[in-house]
Order: sequence, then C-alpha cells, then structure tokens
Amino acid sequence: MKQMMIASTSTVHGSGYLSYLLDTLSSFFKDTGAILFIPYARPGGISHDDYTQIAKDAFSQIGKEVKGIHEFDNPKGALKQAKGIFVGGGNTFVLVNQLYKNDLIGTLQEVIQNGTPYLGTSAGSNICGLTINTTNDMPIVYPPSFKVLAMVPFNINPHYLDPDPGSKHMGETRETRIQEFHAYNSPPVIGLREGSWLEVKGDSIVLRGELDARIFKYHTTPYEVKTGTDLSGLK
Amino acid sequence: MKQMMIASTSTVHGSGYLSYLLDTLSSFFKDTGAILFIPYARPGGISHDDYTQIAKDAFSQIGKEVKGIHEFDNPKGALKQAKGIFVGGGNTFVLVNQLYKNDLIGTLQEVIQNGTPYLGTSAGSNICGLTINTTNDMPIVYPPSFKVLAMVPFNINPHYLDPDPGSKHMGETRETRIQEFHAYNSPPVIGLREGSWLEVKGDSIVLRGELDARIFKYHTTPYEVKTGTDLSGLK
Repeated sequence: MKQMMIASTSTVHGSGYLSYLLDTLSSFFKDTGAILFIPYARPGGISHDDYTQIAKDAFSQIGKEVKGIHEFDNPKGALKQAKGIFVGGGNTFVLVNQLYKNDLIGTLQEVIQNGTPYLGTSAGSNICGLTINTTNDMPIVYPPSFKVLAMVPFNINPHYLDPDPGSKHMGETRETRIQEFHAYNSPPVIGLREGSWLEVKGDSIVLRGELDARIFKYHTTPYEVKTGTDLSGLK
Repeated sequence: MKQMMIASTSTVHGSGYLSYLLDTLSSFFKDTGAILFIPYARPGGISHDDYTQIAKDAFSQIGKEVKGIHEFDNPKGALKQAKGIFVGGGNTFVLVNQLYKNDLIGTLQEVIQNGTPYLGTSAGSNICGLTINTTNDMPIVYPPSFKVLAMVPFNINPHYLDPDPGSKHMGETRETRIQEFHAYNSPPVIGLREGSWLEVKGDSIVLRGELDARIFKYHTTPYEVKTGTDLSGLK
C-alpha cells in the first residue's frame, strides 16, 4: 500500500529545513530509523554530499539516520533495500535527468507501490505526478522524457503562488501558466501552497497543512479546496 | 548581414502591445511593408489567428501589413520569401516544438544569416540564443530538443527580474536559477529587463533601451552593463 507525503516545499519562510514537518515525519517514518535520501535535484548546484548533509542534520532531530543514494555502488539495489525514501527539492529537470540516467523510475514506482514510505518536497513532489510539465523550474538540462512516477493521477505544481495584484512585471502568473498547460494537456493540476502536502495512503489522497490548495481542471474554472479534502477523485 | 532586434518583452507595463518599440520598428523594417508573423508561441493558448490579429493591429500603426505563417500552405517557402520576420512571445516550449515540427529551425537560421530583418520578443528572443535552457516558461510540451537558432553566442533570459528583498516565497530567484544553469553549462547568459533589447547588425550586438542588463558568465560574479554596451565579445 502506497504511503507518501508529497510536500510543496522543504522549508517555510522563517524556519529551518523540514522544521514544519518534523513531528509528522516522526510518525510517518516510525517503522524505520534509516532514510535513503536522493539528492539528485542539487539545489543551487550543490554537491550530493553537501545536500545529503542538510537532510542528515534535519532528520537527526527526530533520531533518524540518512544515507545518500550516491553513496551506494548500486543505486537500484539501495532503493529496493530502503525502508524509507526522501527525494529533496532543487531543479526538477536535473533530478529527472539523473533518475533516468540511473534507470530508477521503474524501481521507484515499484518500491512505492509495495509500501516503502516516500517523502518528496518540491522537485521530489513534482515527480510524483504524471509529468513534469507543470514544474516551475528552469530547464537547465534536457531530460530524456518529462514523464515521471504517476503515483497520483494528476500533475503537481509545488510552491504555488497567487498572482500579485501590484506587480508591474509582464511575465505570466502561475495561474496563467497552468491554464496554458491545459491548452495542450488534459490532466488536472493541483497548486500546492508552501506549507501544504498531500498524504497518500493506498488509494486515498488527502490535503494536509494549514492552507487551501488550488485545483485546475481541464475546461473548468479553477477552484480552492480546504485542508482535509479527499482528492482521490481528482483525475 | 544579420539584422535583428531581440527584445525582452513585447509590452512594457501600462502601454500597448509593441508601443515602446514602434518608432524603432518603423526604421528597422523600413525596406518592407509586409511582415511575416510566427504566432506559434500562443500566449495563453490563443489561436494562431487571434494572435496574428494582435500583431496586425500593432504594425498597422506604422503602416505595415502582417500575415501569419500559419496562413501559408508552405511555411518554409513563406519564410524564404519574407522581407521581415516577427516571432512573438508566449510559451517557449510550444514555439520550439512547432518550429521543429515544421522543420523551420534551419530555414530561420539561413534567412536571418542572409539579412532578413528579424524581430523577436520574449519567447521569440529566447530562440535567438544557443538553447532554451534559460527560458522562464513552464515546460507544458516536450520539444525534440532545447537547441535553437544560435544567432548570438550566448543564452538569453528575457523578462529578467531582480530578487524581491521582501519576498517570503521560498522558490528560487531568477539569479539563483541562472547560476544553477552554470552548474551544468558554460555559455554566458544575458538577463534582459523588460524594455531592453539587443540590436544585432552583422557581428555587432548592442544593448538598447533605457535599462541596464545583467550578465552571467561561467565562474564569474554577475555584473551589470549599461545600455549602449557592445556585447559582441560576450561568448
């Protein structure tokens, strides 16, 4: 049975890395003391070692050990052995490119389906949807495909940002961008604001955190859903 | 001899479509009364016809006729016949995808090299660089490649936006995103603020408009350049 936490962000403004999630993570990962971290998204281009250290520092606060997947000779084997997985944020294109390069997409799908608890933040959440067509990231590398894990039957837009009514900038708002996505694609998109996450247990998908989320469906006016809403019907 | 205007945006805040450029365009396109418009980037997913109408309305103010490339049975032939080309903004991935689909990349390179005046705005400017790895757009479709026209020896970031010091949003700033690009790629990037454009005449590349631009070079601290700066040495 799938057990996932798909979070908009690792960090909310004014607090430490993963701080707002630590209590929840303590119970989410209750059956394991060791987390396998996938640092491939490399925020700011930092090294896999440096990024893993950040995850280690956070998880040490709830008594969990973290090991980076890059520390294993056989990343596929490491995934299969893992009792808990965390895929951190950074650049979604870099993350997806490396997952394809190491042929890990199928293995990730398999271990998540088999019940290994999975935490994703930001880019690590983007890959839980159908495709990365709704990432906010700059396409700094060209991955072999935009198709990803499809662990939920829709796409995710993390760090969802409401339009700034005072802005004089002519770039598109997030809402406009997602509506453009629907000119070429039909799957729903969930705009997850920073501080929100999806809790997946088997076929159930529930919005958690304090904030509402925004739902974009093909040929439908976007609408808000409250925290606690069951989104398993969204497809 | 190349003759290009590579503009950050079609529209500056509080004015009409192309308004801030019309005087310059009048002299830039002085040798032709007819402009071929490429509406493939489809801002907001609008139709090619609707988008072409917007370009028509703007160019009619300086006595130029506009025809959309989609109105021709043979788009490649239309490009070869054109005396002036305008590629409008919208979604860079959609634009590039359609250019590849219609096999127009090589033809565009050829006619620009041969001296057909080319105006690009936003997505239409992005494609003048080496790759679209530094677009701001959402990757709503998967193009066959990120490689584009390479009419200048660097990459372009249109709608360049300075960091907002008051922001509580945890998404990356534009500067951070471009610096991440340099973790995987070495070409320079020019951040073109809205209201700026590059004027290309043969091998000369000069920054025009009222604003400074920001230059990002591999392994170098980003720096500002004044309008009027010759950027032909940037590579």
